[in-house]
Amino acid sequence: MSHSETALSFSGKSDLDLLFDFLRFRSVSTKPDHAPEMRACADWVAALLRHGGFQAEVAETGGHPAVLGRGPEAPGKPTVLVYGHYDVQPEEPVNLWTSPPFEPAIRNKRVFARGATDNKGQILAHILGAIHLLREEGSLPVNLIFLIEGEEEVGSTNLDDFIRARRSELRCDVIAISDTGMIAEGYPTLTQSLRGIAAMEVIVRGPATDLHSGIFGGAVMNPATALVRMLAGLHDAKGRIAVPGFYDDVTKPDAAEREALAALPVSESDYQRETGVLLLSGEEGFSSMERIGIRPTAEINGLTSGYQGEGTKTVLPSTASAKLTFRLVPNQKPDRALNLVEIHLQNLLPPGVEMEIIRGHGGMPYTLDLKSPWCGAALRALEATFGQKPALMREGGSIPIVQTFRDLLGSDTLLLGLAAPDCKAHAPDENFPVENFEAGIRLHQNLLRELAG
Amino acid sequence: MSHSETALSFSGKSDLDLLFDFLRFRSVSTKPDHAPEMRACADWVAALLRHGGFQAEVAETGGHPAVLGRGPEAPGKPTVLVYGHYDVQPEEPVNLWTSPPFEPAIRNKRVFARGATDNKGQILAHILGAIHLLREEGSLPVNLIFLIEGEEEVGSTNLDDFIRARRSELRCDVIAISDTGMIAEGYPTLTQSLRGIAAMEVIVRGPATDLHSGIFGGAVMNPATALVRMLAGLHDAKGRIAVPGFYDDVTKPDAAEREALAALPVSESDYQRETGVLLLSGEEGFSSMERIGIRPTAEINGLTSGYQGEGTKTVLPSTASAKLTFRLVPNQKPDRALNLVEIHLQNLLPPGVEMEIIRGHGGMPYTLDLKSPWCGAALRALEATFGQKPALMREGGSIPIVQTFRDLLGSDTLLLGLAAPDCKAHAPDENFPVENFEAGIRLHQNLLRELAG
Repeated sequence: MSHSETALSFSGKSDLDLLFDFLRFRSVSTKPDHAPEMRACADWVAALLRHGGFQAEVAETGGHPAVLGRGPEAPGKPTVLVYGHYDVQPEEPVNLWTSPPFEPAIRNKRVFARGATDNKGQILAHILGAIHLLREEGSLPVNLIFLIEGEEEVGSTNLDDFIRARRSELRCDVIAISDTGMIAEGYPTLTQSLRGIAAMEVIVRGPATDLHSGIFGGAVMNPATALVRMLAGLHDAKGRIAVPGFYDDVTKPDAAEREALAALPVSESDYQRETGVLLLSGEEGFSSMERIGIRPTAEINGLTSGYQGEGTKTVLPSTASAKLTFRLVPNQKPDRALNLVEIHLQNLLPPGVEMEIIRGHGGMPYTLDLKSPWCGAALRALEATFGQKPALMREGGSIPIVQTFRDLLGSDTLLLGLAAPDCKAHAPDENFPVENFEAGIRLHQNLLRELAG
Repeated sequence: MSHSETALSFSGKSDLDLLFDFLRFRSVSTKPDHAPEMRACADWVAALLRHGGFQAEVAETGGHPAVLGRGPEAPGKPTVLVYGHYDVQPEEPVNLWTSPPFEPAIRNKRVFARGATDNKGQILAHILGAIHLLREEGSLPVNLIFLIEGEEEVGSTNLDDFIRARRSELRCDVIAISDTGMIAEGYPTLTQSLRGIAAMEVIVRGPATDLHSGIFGGAVMNPATALVRMLAGLHDAKGRIAVPGFYDDVTKPDAAEREALAALPVSESDYQRETGVLLLSGEEGFSSMERIGIRPTAEINGLTSGYQGEGTKTVLPSTASAKLTFRLVPNQKPDRALNLVEIHLQNLLPPGVEMEIIRGHGGMPYTLDLKSPWCGAALRALEATFGQKPALMREGGSIPIVQTFRDLLGSDTLLLGLAAPDCKAHAPDENFPVENFEAGIRLHQNLLRELAG
């Protein structure tokens, strides 16, 4: 019996059993050969929803399928859409995981697996919250829609078209997403803003083939040397992005906002502990929280050139490449950011080599409207669940779909993060506290009740 | 029957058949798991020598074995040691080869395979030249020693000790090596100098694990960013190495020497064609031949960091590393060069990351004594073989063993290159003209006759 067949029996399983079943799917959306595993995972989500009393569909998109679920009708009540994703980041480097990334394990009251936090643990808490509520009460206090996609980790390439095509079915009053972090352990958090993202790959090409670095070295521009010079030009000495025009659209932080951020229960030493660095470092004149929350970044995500095996190879490589992502803040736009970077890199390109830019996905930065009535409901649900006043947080990550929802459905999104600060999303040993999973189930129920008004 | 067993029958095989047998061994010295193939290749060389009437031994070293061969005694005649190596560079990237690297193929009258030029084709020409001469004449005009090692491509780590241990057996009047290039097709060449080499790997470490580039990006020094900044500091804007003190020991080129180099039958467009670059580029104020022959270099041989797979991964990598080699000219010393580079990189290291340096092999630069009587013999042998006056060339590559021979055996080395300018040594589609292989066999015979006096 395959994993999917085992997993497809739901009866008698605890919430945690179901989370483990969900986490065992190797649903890595960026790897083309994982497509069957992606579909099996989507089938599992849909089957669970049906088992719980929902209508559910595995809906085709231009890429990996999305799961669409719908609770029983609640006439005269608001419609709430809960969004999440069942795809996960690649598990590499596997050798740095304490336990295998797709064999969930519990240590120190946390579930360790790829996707435990991002996003399987969080979206499953919502699903189970709704299923339990429906089972206990026979109905739901709102009209509830689940939209769980399979391409969040690759920029939600096909979701815009999908939402456009199914717009009338997806119409809703408010959207809830748990794909962000809690400011501190046990501290309920509503995310006030998200950074946008713009991705590109830079490839520098020189000699027609790899050359002997002795026979030709000195007379030919080494593409790796060219690349490092260009990338060294991404920042200035003060840690600012040195791309001309890059800050033109960046909203200037005001004093009240900076004070509110400074009052949050997070210290510089928290960041230092969570990242394991000796010394925090970034743009001069800003705190770590500001550097992450309200300032843009230029990050090298990968470098590749020449010989990477054991020992020495005296080669002058014919190509060198880098994967880059830029985090954006209001009111930057991904296309404009990439245009500016491309011009800048072209200006830094030394003679004797050529450059190719492959643009990746982009996502707009987002700011929540705090005056919306739904915000009050969310803050009350958070306080009821955790017994503590929620913090308003500026999130460094990107959820481009949030802007899409505003554009296409006209609805605001409530970002109710359940991730622990040290959840290691996207990295080895990703984990999700069992406590947060259980709180997420209760939060969903409180949220539906508060939103019902 | 395995390849080694097939290969171990020599009778009835043409010279070219034997070259093909030699090239089929995957004798990549840098890969630990290739050790059995290395030994099989050494066994084959020794068996061929024995088959040809030589004494031969597969001699243990601290690493891969060396082959030691000795011809019949020629009392009162000089002793000539011919050095070569049976190990080859790694074959990667395999997908860029027209035919598989260890399945020799002939196209356009050239043999294509890893090691065809560097060094199997060239050393085999010497071996076969001697075997044929001995068979035809019943004796050799000199005392002839073959020393064929298996660690040239990994810096000849164990050869110094080996030579020291076997010094009395290896005592000789002159040494001949064919592991360098011909200045132009069909143009006999005696190499007057070689560059030295110093290798190191730089590893930059930051966060304890890979981090989410959204959640933490901006507050942590990215090790890849740190690395590119440090490496961008290896050169100044004029293409000179920017490491303080690096040029202190570099011999200033004199005008006569620069004129002689300029008179050689190689043009800038030859370099451009051979490398396939749009534009040659290097240290200001020097020709390509000078940049390669008489000036030091700093080359990046490899870059590794973060995500290198398909698509995007929004990761802030915990480490970034680079493989570097420096080519040295008289009178630079590898240790001093690496010391200076290490200090320079340490000075360029940004706060928030740590650096580790792993030193690789080093080799001294070498200049041939043109007034030696053996030089005249070599020049005459080259002219007799090719029917043309030989060129004196400055070689950009490194053969550290040449300095070792001078230090330990007190003997000069004649560098009689047979490699074509576009041989692609160390790169995909490495090749050796059949004509050069045949000329090499004749050259060996002419050389022995001339050295006999």
